[in-house]
Amino acid sequence: MIAVDWGTSSFRAYRLAADGQVIARHAASLGILQVPFGRFAEVLRAETGTWLADGETRVLLSGMVGSRQGWVEAPYLPCPAGAAEIAAALIDIPFDGASVKLVPGLCDRDASGTPEVMRGEETQILGVLDRIGTDGLACLPGSHAKWARIAGGRIASFQTFLSGEAFAALRSGTILGRMMTDAPTDLPAFLRGVARGEGALLHQIFGARSLALFGELAEAETASYLSGLLIGHEIRAALLPDVPVFLIGAAPLCALYAAAIRALGGTAEILAEDAAAFGLASIGATAQWA
Amino acid sequence: MIAVDWGTSSFRAYRLAADGQVIARHAASLGILQVPFGRFAEVLRAETGTWLADGETRVLLSGMVGSRQGWVEAPYLPCPAGAAEIAAALIDIPFDGASVKLVPGLCDRDASGTPEVMRGEETQILGVLDRIGTDGLACLPGSHAKWARIAGGRIASFQTFLSGEAFAALRSGTILGRMMTDAPTDLPAFLRGVARGEGALLHQIFGARSLALFGELAEAETASYLSGLLIGHEIRAALLPDVPVFLIGAAPLCALYAAAIRALGGTAEILAEDAAAFGLASIGATAQWA
Repeated sequence: MIAVDWGTSSFRAYRLAADGQVIARHAASLGILQVPFGRFAEVLRAETGTWLADGETRVLLSGMVGSRQGWVEAPYLPCPAGAAEIAAALIDIPFDGASVKLVPGLCDRDASGTPEVMRGEETQILGVLDRIGTDGLACLPGSHAKWARIAGGRIASFQTFLSGEAFAALRSGTILGRMMTDAPTDLPAFLRGVARGEGALLHQIFGARSLALFGELAEAETASYLSGLLIGHEIRAALLPDVPVFLIGAAPLCALYAAAIRALGGTAEILAEDAAAFGLASIGATAQWA
Repeated sequence: MIAVDWGTSSFRAYRLAADGQVIARHAASLGILQVPFGRFAEVLRAETGTWLADGETRVLLSGMVGSRQGWVEAPYLPCPAGAAEIAAALIDIPFDGASVKLVPGLCDRDASGTPEVMRGEETQILGVLDRIGTDGLACLPGSHAKWARIAGGRIASFQTFLSGEAFAALRSGTILGRMMTDAPTDLPAFLRGVARGEGALLHQIFGARSLALFGELAEAETASYLSGLLIGHEIRAALLPDVPVFLIGAAPLCALYAAAIRALGGTAEILAEDAAAFGLASIGATAQWA
């Protein structure tokens, strides 16, 4: 099978054996925003053509390729949803010479009734369900961090936090960024921001400037401190008592999240990369292929 | 007396009668960042020269002109501070033909020990102390909103909230802004954001997008909704039970704040503009002039 994690800014393809193992991989800077004039079929054929020529007839796609800006818009599947529900809701895309299917994103509503959406993260979570077990919290840090409650082996509910994108906007678009010279990866300064405590975030972020003005925080620590404030607020809101957190994503960011979760009394485990490939393998194994 | 509210982006001068009434006013786009090569004395003389020629010999300045980027850096005066403490801490600036004095900013520390600073707002607050009485909350909305606790006729403590600047950065620097076509002044959408309730701000701001994606918020309401979310969080954190709020600042923004404060169970009153002129008059009446 061919599995493709096709996001906004990247195209990651995997050739999978029958048991789900990754035989070969191929990545390209061909996110959906880089595909000209909706030529998704041509890009897919160009990027996976050797595997298709070698006899692969099943292609499973996940990610923003199923959004309004993608190849075909797939309706969101409501939570709770697991591999069986997702496999039963795949969208068929006409394609010469292979059966191409698309994984739908998930939707949910928080306690206030506000909608939640994800596209692609559901597949990554399914890829590590064997590590999470039947119950836990999956966290996918990033621009739009996702926290998903896993219960009974399914994605029961989830929440989005804009921490990553808010950090970048505050750094580039406010006075806070003027003194920031550091990458936001200084662990002590990051953990100082995490520890700042509960309270009003819009007040606390001003501290990234006032502490530096008073010489109580080095300018080269201010970005890490601000990042810690934001991620600390996120984790405090998302952690559940006695529920372990499983982190999925790029290793450096996952390491910062794990340190913050432990500092706030939680337990965290960083899972392997390739979660999307494993998830697509799991869904593909359950799906009905022509 | 000549009173000048000299901020980062504007220069506002007032000629005051002995009883503090404004006789004449003059404003220019000559904030401290627009003054070339530290030529503050020349700008002051050029902009207030006719009043000086007419016999004024006392000039009192407040605002960012007393910052490191200004004319002379004035050390922050710690809270609590009232008109007497501030008048006793004025900084003399050498100037031919007039006595020029500078109002120092204030500093404070919040419960976590993080520093707080203001420059200029202390003067505006003193300008409306007769309206506030001995006890109350003064709120100055804006890029860096200030909330000051007035007790015993002095500024007892204060807090900064970066709501205005964070709103602009989130609008211009994140995906939230893509659908925003509106000025953030649609009152029903603003109050819907205010009402969203307590919780994690970094999660809630994603709702400005997800509600619009689901057609549950018009795109032309998303900026007002986001503004309401941010200001609602600020007000929830700053309001004190049974303490009235006195708003100082531009009328349209003060009107939004007043509506939000009332929606959250507080009482709010919008005070007159020219607060800086009244505050400078009050300080000037107490100061020791040569």
